[in-house]
Amino acid sequence: MNTFGRIFKVSIFGESHGTAVGICIDGCPPGIPLEIKDFEIDLKRRQGGLQKGSTPRKEDDVPEILSGLFNGYTTGAPLTIIINNKNVRSSDYSELKKTPRPGHADFVASVKYKGYQDYRGGGHFSGRLTACLVMAGVVAKKIISQKFTLVKFQAKVMEVGGNTNIEDAVSEAINKNDSVGSKIECNISGLPAGLGEPFFDSVESLISHAVFSIPAIKGIEFGSGFSSASMYGSMHNDAIINKEGVTSTNNAGGINGGLTNGNDIIFRVAVKPASSTPHKQKSINLESGMIEEIQVGGRHDLVIGLRVPPVLECVSAMVIADLLLLESLL
Amino acid sequence: MNTFGRIFKVSIFGESHGTAVGICIDGCPPGIPLEIKDFEIDLKRRQGGLQKGSTPRKEDDVPEILSGLFNGYTTGAPLTIIINNKNVRSSDYSELKKTPRPGHADFVASVKYKGYQDYRGGGHFSGRLTACLVMAGVVAKKIISQKFTLVKFQAKVMEVGGNTNIEDAVSEAINKNDSVGSKIECNISGLPAGLGEPFFDSVESLISHAVFSIPAIKGIEFGSGFSSASMYGSMHNDAIINKEGVTSTNNAGGINGGLTNGNDIIFRVAVKPASSTPHKQKSINLESGMIEEIQVGGRHDLVIGLRVPPVLECVSAMVIADLLLLESLL
Amino acid sequence: MNTFGRIFKVSIFGESHGTAVGICIDGCPPGIPLEIKDFEIDLKRRQGGLQKGSTPRKEDDVPEILSGLFNGYTTGAPLTIIINNKNVRSSDYSELKKTPRPGHADFVASVKYKGYQDYRGGGHFSGRLTACLVMAGVVAKKIISQKFTLVKFQAKVMEVGGNTNIEDAVSEAINKNDSVGSKIECNISGLPAGLGEPFFDSVESLISHAVFSIPAIKGIEFGSGFSSASMYGSMHNDAIINKEGVTSTNNAGGINGGLTNGNDIIFRVAVKPASSTPHKQKSINLESGMIEEIQVGGRHDLVIGLRVPPVLECVSAMVIADLLLLESLL
Amino acid sequence: MNTFGRIFKVSIFGESHGTAVGICIDGCPPGIPLEIKDFEIDLKRRQGGLQKGSTPRKEDDVPEILSGLFNGYTTGAPLTIIINNKNVRSSDYSELKKTPRPGHADFVASVKYKGYQDYRGGGHFSGRLTACLVMAGVVAKKIISQKFTLVKFQAKVMEVGGNTNIEDAVSEAINKNDSVGSKIECNISGLPAGLGEPFFDSVESLISHAVFSIPAIKGIEFGSGFSSASMYGSMHNDAIINKEGVTSTNNAGGINGGLTNGNDIIFRVAVKPASSTPHKQKSINLESGMIEEIQVGGRHDLVIGLRVPPVLECVSAMVIADLLLLESLL
Repeated sequence: MNTFGRIFKVSIFGESHGTAVGICIDGCPPGIPLEIKDFEIDLKRRQGGLQKGSTPRKEDDVPEILSGLFNGYTTGAPLTIIINNKNVRSSDYSELKKTPRPGHADFVASVKYKGYQDYRGGGHFSGRLTACLVMAGVVAKKIISQKFTLVKFQAKVMEVGGNTNIEDAVSEAINKNDSVGSKIECNISGLPAGLGEPFFDSVESLISHAVFSIPAIKGIEFGSGFSSASMYGSMHNDAIINKEGVTSTNNAGGINGGLTNGNDIIFRVAVKPASSTPHKQKSINLESGMIEEIQVGGRHDLVIGLRVPPVLECVSAMVIADLLLLESLL
Repeated sequence: MNTFGRIFKVSIFGESHGTAVGICIDGCPPGIPLEIKDFEIDLKRRQGGLQKGSTPRKEDDVPEILSGLFNGYTTGAPLTIIINNKNVRSSDYSELKKTPRPGHADFVASVKYKGYQDYRGGGHFSGRLTACLVMAGVVAKKIISQKFTLVKFQAKVMEVGGNTNIEDAVSEAINKNDSVGSKIECNISGLPAGLGEPFFDSVESLISHAVFSIPAIKGIEFGSGFSSASMYGSMHNDAIINKEGVTSTNNAGGINGGLTNGNDIIFRVAVKPASSTPHKQKSINLESGMIEEIQVGGRHDLVIGLRVPPVLECVSAMVIADLLLLESLL
Repeated sequence: MNTFGRIFKVSIFGESHGTAVGICIDGCPPGIPLEIKDFEIDLKRRQGGLQKGSTPRKEDDVPEILSGLFNGYTTGAPLTIIINNKNVRSSDYSELKKTPRPGHADFVASVKYKGYQDYRGGGHFSGRLTACLVMAGVVAKKIISQKFTLVKFQAKVMEVGGNTNIEDAVSEAINKNDSVGSKIECNISGLPAGLGEPFFDSVESLISHAVFSIPAIKGIEFGSGFSSASMYGSMHNDAIINKEGVTSTNNAGGINGGLTNGNDIIFRVAVKPASSTPHKQKSINLESGMIEEIQVGGRHDLVIGLRVPPVLECVSAMVIADLLLLESLL
Repeated sequence: MNTFGRIFKVSIFGESHGTAVGICIDGCPPGIPLEIKDFEIDLKRRQGGLQKGSTPRKEDDVPEILSGLFNGYTTGAPLTIIINNKNVRSSDYSELKKTPRPGHADFVASVKYKGYQDYRGGGHFSGRLTACLVMAGVVAKKIISQKFTLVKFQAKVMEVGGNTNIEDAVSEAINKNDSVGSKIECNISGLPAGLGEPFFDSVESLISHAVFSIPAIKGIEFGSGFSSASMYGSMHNDAIINKEGVTSTNNAGGINGGLTNGNDIIFRVAVKPASSTPHKQKSINLESGMIEEIQVGGRHDLVIGLRVPPVLECVSAMVIADLLLLESLL
C-alpha cells in the first residue's frame, strides 16, 4: 500500500513532524556508486525557496543512509535512507482535529485512521514526503545511467494560473495572496522500445500510478492527451519512418499499446492550487456541528507547482528503473 | 504484470484470434450469487453494434465459468471465466509483421515479444480483451452491492470529436470515413470516506492505473482536473458543510489526500481515435526498409469511445471492490 | 493467495468435479517451444495407476492451451492451460457436508467458505489440482532448459511406511487395506550459486512455500536437516574445496545463508498417509451433534507418496525458474 | 524479496556493522498501543547471554520508532523501527573476502552481490537481523491481542545435540568448544478455524516461508511430521469430536487442507550448529586457489538454538496477524 514497484520496490514512511521521513528500497542492484552529494541538486530543486511563490525554508534536507551502502557502493541489500526532521513547530495543530481544513486530508485521515492519525503538519500526508520520492528517484536515475547513459528526465512548468508567462502569474498570486494551480510537462528521452505491458501494467498505468502519489496532482495526459479526444485517426496516428520505430509526430507520447515505442515519453500534469491558501475559508466544526470561518497559518507555498518538476522526474525514474530491471536490461 | 488488485486480484489472458479470452479472479468472497445472465447487459453495451459508428458484430459474447462457482454462488476459490472465440478471420494478418500499422501495437509487440507475438487481430493487445475487464467489473459490482446497495458507477460519452452533440459528430466521422476521438465522464456515487492510501495507492493512482489498462485512453482528470491548473486555492477548495464530510462543491472529484471523502468520485478520460482508420497511411516496411502506403482492412469502429462507458464503470468497480475488501468493509 | 512467484507467476484454479482445473502463468518469456506432448510424461507419472497402491484411473489428463501460445511457441503473453474434467461422479458427496471426514478439508473448507464451498470430491482442495502444479512445472523446466541445459530435478520415494523396501511396504498397505505415509527425496543439480535472498525469500523459504502447497506434505528438511540438530559445527560445516564453491560434503543441502551455493539442492519431505483410508472412522455429525462411524467410499490411493515425485520436481522447477528470471539469468 | 506479508507487510533492512538494523511495517492498523518497553522481554530473550552456551553481549538492543506512532498509538501509517548499532568491531573482516568461512554466507554473498556485499560481521546475512524479526513479531502479537486475547505463541528448546537434557548438552558443547545443533518446538493456541489457503498460501507454506527466514534452520515439520511418513491413515487421521472441530489427537498439527482447524498449531524445527565453531577448518583461498586452515574469531554462540524460541514465536505471529487481517478478523 505504501510500496511501489515490482523489482525496484520503494517503501515510503514518515510524518511531517515525526522523527524522520524516509524510504526503504528493496531490489536496488549492487555496485551502484552513491553518496549524499548525489541527492543535493534534486532535493534543492524540490525545496524551492529561491523562487518567488515558494516557501523560504531554512531547513536543509540532508539524507542519512542507514543500510545497503558499503564503501561508497550499493550492496544489493535493502537501501534505507532517511531525512531527520529538525525544524518542526507542532504547537498549533490540535485545532485541525476539530475543524478540518477545506481541500486538505484532515477529514479523510481522521476517518481512515479512526482518529489516531498524526495530524501535525499533515502527518504522513504531508508534501514533505515528496522529498522521499526525490531520494528514490535519484537512486533510480543512478541505476539507469549505468547502462542507459542517454536516458533523460526533464520536467518544466508550462503554465501558472493558466498563464504561460510564469513570472507574471507568480507575481499575481503573490499580489492576490492566494495559492494558484499550474501545469507541468515531463519528457523522458533515450528509452528503448518494448517496456511495459499490454493491460494492467501499461506504461501509462504505471506512470500515472506513480504520478498521482504526488499530492495536488489532479490530471495527467500522454502525448496529445485530451486534444486527441477531438482528433481524427488519420491525423493522430504517428507515421513510423524507420526500422528503429522513430515516428514523424508524437501524438502517442511515446507509448503504443501500453508499451514504450522508442520515441520520447511526453506527459503533462495538472497541479491544483495548494489547499493552504492564506484566504479565510469556511468549514465545519466537527464538535459543535457549526460552520466556522478558519484561516490556515504557518509557512506555505502559493505556487507549489514550482517545486513539482524534480518530483515528477523522480517518480518517472522509479517507474523506468523498475521496467528496465523487469526486462533484464540493467 | 497482467494482474491487478491486492485482495480482489484479477488476471487477464487471451488473444483476439486464439482459443479464448478470459479472467481468473483470486480473492472473490464466497456466497455471491452469480449467473451468466448477470454479464449480459454490460457485455452488450460494450459490444456496440446498434450505435452508428461502432462495429456491427455478429458474434455473441457468452461467458463460460470454469471454476469458483457452485450451485449459483461463488465458492471463495478462484473464479475463472472465459469467452470462447468463434467468429475469427485470421487469414490476412501476416502482412502486419512486415509493415507495422501506425498507432497500433504491431511494432512494440514485436520488440517486446521478440517476434513471437500472436499478431492476428492484435493478439493479446486486442480491444477484445476489454470484454474481460467488463466481466471482472460485473463480478466486482455484485460483490459491492452485497453491502453497499447505493454505490453506483455511471459513465457517459461527453464529446465526440470535440463536439457535445454526439449524434452529429458520429455522422461526421462516418461521412469522413475516419476514426475519431471522444471524451467520457465517469461518476461513482455512494462510497464511504477513507478508502485509499496517502501515497502510492492513492485512489487517483489506483483508478488511473486501472483506466489506462483500457486501450486508446490517453488522459484522465479528477474533479476540476486540468481546469484546476488555472484556479486559485480560495476558489478550488471545497467547503465541508456537515459532519459527514459533504462538500458544497466537488472540485476535488471526491478525493482528498488520495482518499475518498464521501462525495462522488468524478473523473473524465480522453479516448484517442482508433488506430484502425480506413484512411490510407504511411509506414515502414521492416524488411525492405522502404516507406509504404498501407490501408487497414477488417471490421473496425470509427467511434470506439461509444463502447468505452461500460468498460470504464467496470474497471472502476474492480478498484472499489478491492479497496472495500482491504478495509474489511465487505 | 492462489498465486505463486514474482516474475514467473502461477495462478491455480479449478475444482475436482467442476468444469476444469487449470493454471494461468504470467511472466512466461516468449519463444519457448511448447506442445501438448511436453506434458505427457510428468502427467502420466503423477497419475500413477500402473503402480500397486495407486488408483487405476481411466481418465486421461489432456491439457488444452487457451492462450499465450502461437505457432508452437510461447508468445510472452499470459499462458493459460486447462484440463477439462470428464470422468466425474458427484452423486454421493452431499453427505460430507453433514459429517466431515477426519483428516480431510471438509470441516475447515466449510468454515472458510461459509458453507458455499464446492464439496464434491474435495472441490478446490482436491489432489487433482496437483496436475496443475505439474503443468506449471513442465513449462518452468522448458524455460530453464533454454539456457541451463544441465539443470535436473529428480525426486524418488525413499521410504513407504518407514520401510526402504518400497515394494514390500506397498504390499503390506494393500494387505491391511489402509493408506500409508512415505518419505520422498528431491535433488536439484546444475544450478548456479547466488540464487535467493538472505531473509524472507531464502531458497529454503521459497521451496518449502511451494512444497507445502502439495496436499499431504507435513515436513521438509534440507541437506542433513533434522539430523543436523544432533551435530557439531566442526562436523556439519561443508569445506569449500575449489573456487567454484564445490564442497566436500553437502550437509547444507546446497544452500548457505538462504542462497544456492552451486552444489546440489537436496531436500526430503514427509508425506502423511492419505486421509481417505478405507477403514471405518469416527466423526461428528454437525447436524445431530452425535459421533458417527463413517467409511470413505470412492476411488482412492493407498500410497499417495508414489505419485508425489513428479509434483515435487515440478514445484521445485517453478521456484527455480522464478529465481533465475529474477536474477536476469534467463 | 526482503518483504513478507500481504496486509501486514514487513520489510527488513540493515547490516550487522552498519548504522542500524530495522523494519518498516506497512499495514499495521491504527490504534494499537505501543511503547519501547513492549519490545524488552522478547529482545532480551533473543539476546541470550545469561544462558550458558550463548554469547555474553554487552550491547543493549534499544528500538527507536521513526514513524507511524503518535501519542502512544500506532497511526495506521507505515511503522518504522530501528536499532542503532553501537558495539561494532569491524577491524578484522577483510580476510573473509579472500577465504570464505565454511557454512557461512561469505561465498554466496560474494557471488550474488558481485563483490559489493558488506562483509563485516555477516552484513545483511547476520543473525543480528533476527532482532528485526522479533520487533515485527512483538507488533504482530499486540495487534492480535486486541481481539484474540487467548492466542498464545510458545516455543521451547526440545533437544540440544540430540539430547533432551538441555543443561548437560550445553555443558558438553562448552567442553568440546564446538557449536552444536538443536530442536525447537512451537505451539500456537487459541486460533480460529479457516485461516489460510488450499494451495500456494497454505498455513504450512506461510509459516515455513517465515521460519526459513531465520538463519540456521534446516527443517520443519507440522504435527506428527516426519513420523507420519511411517504411519497408517487409520492411525493418523484425527477424529473430530465436537461441532467446533476439536480433535481427539493432533497429528495434523492444527492444519487440514492448508487451513487452521481450530486446534493448536504445532511445529518443530531443526537448528543446525552455528557455522562459527571455534574449531579450525579448511577452506579455499579464492586468490591463491590453495586450501588453507582458518579459525573463526570474534564473539559467537555455541548453542544458537537457545536464542531461537522468541524468534520462532515472532515470525509465527507475523504470519498469524497477516492471516487474521486478510480474513477481516482484526
